[in-house]
Amino acid sequence: MTLHVGVIGTGAIGEDHIRRLTTVITGAKVVAVSDINMDHAKKIAEKYEATCYATGEELIEAPEVDAIVVASWDPSHAHYVLLAIKFRKFVLCEKPLATSAEDCKKIVDAEIAAQKHLVQVGFMRRFDRGYQQLKTIIENGKIGDPLMLHCVHRNPIPGPKHTTEMSIKNSVIHEIDVLRWLLGEDYKTAQVLLPKSSRLAENGLRDPQIVLLETQSGVRIDIESFVNCQYGYDVQCEVVGETGTIRLPDPATAIMRSQGARSYEIFSDWSDRFIEAYDIEFQQWVDAVKQDTVKGPTAWDGYVACITADACTEAREKGTIVPITMPTCPDFYAK
Amino acid sequence: MTLHVGVIGTGAIGEDHIRRLTTVITGAKVVAVSDINMDHAKKIAEKYEATCYATGEELIEAPEVDAIVVASWDPSHAHYVLLAIKFRKFVLCEKPLATSAEDCKKIVDAEIAAQKHLVQVGFMRRFDRGYQQLKTIIENGKIGDPLMLHCVHRNPIPGPKHTTEMSIKNSVIHEIDVLRWLLGEDYKTAQVLLPKSSRLAENGLRDPQIVLLETQSGVRIDIESFVNCQYGYDVQCEVVGETGTIRLPDPATAIMRSQGARSYEIFSDWSDRFIEAYDIEFQQWVDAVKQDTVKGPTAWDGYVACITADACTEAREKGTIVPITMPTCPDFYAK
Amino acid sequence: MTLHVGVIGTGAIGEDHIRRLTTVITGAKVVAVSDINMDHAKKIAEKYEATCYATGEELIEAPEVDAIVVASWDPSHAHYVLLAIKFRKFVLCEKPLATSAEDCKKIVDAEIAAQKHLVQVGFMRRFDRGYQQLKTIIENGKIGDPLMLHCVHRNPIPGPKHTTEMSIKNSVIHEIDVLRWLLGEDYKTAQVLLPKSSRLAENGLRDPQIVLLETQSGVRIDIESFVNCQYGYDVQCEVVGETGTIRLPDPATAIMRSQGARSYEIFSDWSDRFIEAYDIEFQQWVDAVKQDTVKGPTAWDGYVACITADACTEAREKGTIVPITMPTCPDFYAK
Amino acid sequence: MTLHVGVIGTGAIGEDHIRRLTTVITGAKVVAVSDINMDHAKKIAEKYEATCYATGEELIEAPEVDAIVVASWDPSHAHYVLLAIKFRKFVLCEKPLATSAEDCKKIVDAEIAAQKHLVQVGFMRRFDRGYQQLKTIIENGKIGDPLMLHCVHRNPIPGPKHTTEMSIKNSVIHEIDVLRWLLGEDYKTAQVLLPKSSRLAENGLRDPQIVLLETQSGVRIDIESFVNCQYGYDVQCEVVGETGTIRLPDPATAIMRSQGARSYEIFSDWSDRFIEAYDIEFQQWVDAVKQDTVKGPTAWDGYVACITADACTEAREKGTIVPITMPTCPDFYAK
Repeated sequence: MTLHVGVIGTGAIGEDHIRRLTTVITGAKVVAVSDINMDHAKKIAEKYEATCYATGEELIEAPEVDAIVVASWDPSHAHYVLLAIKFRKFVLCEKPLATSAEDCKKIVDAEIAAQKHLVQVGFMRRFDRGYQQLKTIIENGKIGDPLMLHCVHRNPIPGPKHTTEMSIKNSVIHEIDVLRWLLGEDYKTAQVLLPKSSRLAENGLRDPQIVLLETQSGVRIDIESFVNCQYGYDVQCEVVGETGTIRLPDPATAIMRSQGARSYEIFSDWSDRFIEAYDIEFQQWVDAVKQDTVKGPTAWDGYVACITADACTEAREKGTIVPITMPTCPDFYAK
Repeated sequence: MTLHVGVIGTGAIGEDHIRRLTTVITGAKVVAVSDINMDHAKKIAEKYEATCYATGEELIEAPEVDAIVVASWDPSHAHYVLLAIKFRKFVLCEKPLATSAEDCKKIVDAEIAAQKHLVQVGFMRRFDRGYQQLKTIIENGKIGDPLMLHCVHRNPIPGPKHTTEMSIKNSVIHEIDVLRWLLGEDYKTAQVLLPKSSRLAENGLRDPQIVLLETQSGVRIDIESFVNCQYGYDVQCEVVGETGTIRLPDPATAIMRSQGARSYEIFSDWSDRFIEAYDIEFQQWVDAVKQDTVKGPTAWDGYVACITADACTEAREKGTIVPITMPTCPDFYAK
Repeated sequence: MTLHVGVIGTGAIGEDHIRRLTTVITGAKVVAVSDINMDHAKKIAEKYEATCYATGEELIEAPEVDAIVVASWDPSHAHYVLLAIKFRKFVLCEKPLATSAEDCKKIVDAEIAAQKHLVQVGFMRRFDRGYQQLKTIIENGKIGDPLMLHCVHRNPIPGPKHTTEMSIKNSVIHEIDVLRWLLGEDYKTAQVLLPKSSRLAENGLRDPQIVLLETQSGVRIDIESFVNCQYGYDVQCEVVGETGTIRLPDPATAIMRSQGARSYEIFSDWSDRFIEAYDIEFQQWVDAVKQDTVKGPTAWDGYVACITADACTEAREKGTIVPITMPTCPDFYAK
Repeated sequence: MTLHVGVIGTGAIGEDHIRRLTTVITGAKVVAVSDINMDHAKKIAEKYEATCYATGEELIEAPEVDAIVVASWDPSHAHYVLLAIKFRKFVLCEKPLATSAEDCKKIVDAEIAAQKHLVQVGFMRRFDRGYQQLKTIIENGKIGDPLMLHCVHRNPIPGPKHTTEMSIKNSVIHEIDVLRWLLGEDYKTAQVLLPKSSRLAENGLRDPQIVLLETQSGVRIDIESFVNCQYGYDVQCEVVGETGTIRLPDPATAIMRSQGARSYEIFSDWSDRFIEAYDIEFQQWVDAVKQDTVKGPTAWDGYVACITADACTEAREKGTIVPITMPTCPDFYAK
């Protein structure tokens, strides 16, 4: 049985997911696409022998579509996800699940009402081999209880129209999710430090920023976000436990000795760094959906991430430590 | 279109390839299997919903089989490959292509007579991202002309019934192929050094061994083969060029600080080390065959590797430097 | 000309300095020692052919003593340093310069009154080759302006009677001094985070702690202090600049591949980690004193470190961000 | 007691040793110098307040000279060492001890006749912390019996008038000594491979070269010598044992992330790489001589190195495996 997938949004990331589902993932076929840029959507549809729908709504309703990937622009996510739930179709939604906690809550409520797990959020880092190794080592007790996490998330240059707020909502949100998953507990407080800005940060952007999170049990997390680091795309994570520490490895790249230095390349792009994580995420999603379920990050995880990012934003604006009030996790999402 | 594959040999590696073709590779389906252990073949056939044939010959002839993977024991390879050529079916043969240069030559002659590229040999290292990086860096002139290669190939313990000869014919043969591909030239001489044997090498096995190869242009290669190294599966390769050197990276594994040391894990098994290379090899083979061609290591490459391994064996036995007389590459295989 | 040195305090660190001055440093000789443990002082005096004085005061006054090293217990430092200034003798005082900012101020005032630079404080990290490299790279503009520093200071187990306060006053004080020297600017605010304590931290000790400092120009510093990390003595420092980052290297130790891992040793002791820094510190002090001057960390540096450590302690106790009011640096100490 | 040292040869390395003895080493003073370039010797003498002698012979005879350092040009070494022995004065001779095995033999005979250990050869690598670590790990049995050594010795560019022969006699001779010391056994055979020469090797120089040595017990050693590697001064050594391997660490230098790469500097010069080894070598020599003995590499070690280098040269010229006939070590030098 081949899973028939419809993809809403054929921009850079949407097109990459279509390529992935077609040439990398086993057991799936892209049968339908749509995009607000209809011309581009048509070209993609032709290339991959899929049907091009005028709107995401039509695509979701289309009977040949078994499952939906939402890769459209952020403000449209919640609408498509809610519609997919209405039609009881599986939906993998790129992060963020929604642009407000209220909208996340609506999705959570709708899914609970549907009484079926249909939604997965595209937090692909949980599928990265490095983070998987960290989780295994922690769970095997090899470093005792985790006490602190030191994290770094750097981009060479920001995307167009990047704002101070987006550094947290679009970038640090990956750490917010993956660290919570790594530790298996929720956050209690947030604080944001604003170091001296890089002179290369333009248009009033505050960059870098340092996000400080505290978990329910008292684990302390610091996350450096720096979208103008110039030198490459770099994600680091060190977990300090009672008896030892573990770090994410750098990607394996050839070691060169040349011109007075020993060096290896740092990727310039998140898509190179996490390409394998995306592949694994999609293969597992396809495999699970064919078993009539989803196993990845849930709508609840998307909701919690959104609440936490909002608290960070408030903490940055106020310059204080902000308590994070987390709603109780419904039984429906309890693990 | 889905490629229908028949797999001859359902032992450890054969079964792994069946799993790969079913759950990892896109565009292929295992429709037929066979094995001299008929009972095991039946179980596998059932699990993967394939037909179980009594013999490899029947499987090759079966009309629903588009392409064949040969993963049976080494002495049977040549026979099945020749038969596949006879039926003009594509065949991916695990290394070695044959157990003698003579048999390799027969395959080469048969394929040339068929006037169609049907055979690919399972030298999967060419598909490893690390070796690919080395090749790209060399070809971009980043280290000038290569002058020397220092290579290491270590296993924690040898397989059962491992012999002194097998260290070259079954293990170093991977270096023989991948280094020739890396440099784009053939070998001129071979020599084998026999260091003091490890006391952990049993049954008269000479282990480690050092293979010295010289290419046509004078590049010098040393390959340490050590199948009793105890500590893990470890493959290293340094290319020394006129202006710099490059090394294969170690696999990316989490860095731990614990008990007075900073460390990371070394894999214990070649299948972990090269799992991604196998996946890429098979996906590219499936993609190519669906285009009615093959693009990977050819029968000629298998033949050349066999001639070189034979020269190394002779060099070890005689304790001298042995010239390698390489036949001229037929136009059919010229690139 | 040989510099005749008197050493007050023959405990572990004092004795090590006597050994250093005798067998490592060129141009100096230990001619006098004293200690509250008179018996031990006598043995050391005999071993190194020095005079044993009953008190530090007598040692300071002794005419054959050109310069003094103070390695006695912390509360006695200020008294001996003030006396050395009174006798216009050079004095190298182990950190801390004094146990209160008030006492540091007295020393600063006395030295200014003497109108001669006589005092050096034993902040040996400034002499470590690693930190020297970082400073050179920063000053050469290779990473642009520094924006953030991520630091780690870990001990396997705490010394006897270690308290929560001592983690800052005796341990983090090294970072307080060396980072200020590295950046060339003073601190503006302090904050201390208290993560969940390790279950291996005994007697109510809060461990680990995270010290957050902000410099006048807005550089943000985080320093993890963890005196129960179990695995070794580990000092890390990453400087994040506008165009790149630099890290302190780990000490060069042999790389072993064994038992499924690639590893190298981490020292268990600060004296191994910084032995070379101590050697350089003492050689440069001896050389400078023979030129009738001192060039290392000044009494002012000791005073500033003390003020900063006090602010950190207050920040920890109050749980808030504490502004650091730094007195204006007198011309006498301006560089 | 201060050791009064006379230094013959005030060229680059001689002057560096004078600086070392004066400003780094404790317990020694340079009291006499001489050089064939009399003008330069006079300047150095003045700077360091030493007597300038017209000839090395006069310097050796001078009554105020306790011990001699020979740093003149290679062909004069044997003459000065023999004269020092005649006057029963300690002598530290830069490598090589002599330019022919015959002259080394004369020195050995003279020292035995004197019945006192007076001669030390300047094989400073034995004092490098890295090699010391390797030796300790081997001797502690942590990797079982050594079976193979893979070594690399690279210079960015050759010195002036560098010849094919000098690559072994002046450069690889360091490996010849230090590996013999590391393993504690002598060599049995030598072979030299000549890879394709770098196009940057001028005036007919064969560069790189690979020296293959076999020890009495069958340990196999390969040493790459490459004096035109362009990128830096690089010394590597991996010892492969029965249960694990160890490698010399690279020098600890700051790790930079910049311009798409993670890198650290490689030294360009052997004097930077081994500066600490030279310091330790000289301090230990001064300390030993003051105890009326020497403990470092002996005249016998210099003789054996010379014999081995001669065998390598013969092996290179003949293109064959050359047996090394090592004379029996006299009791006088037995350890």
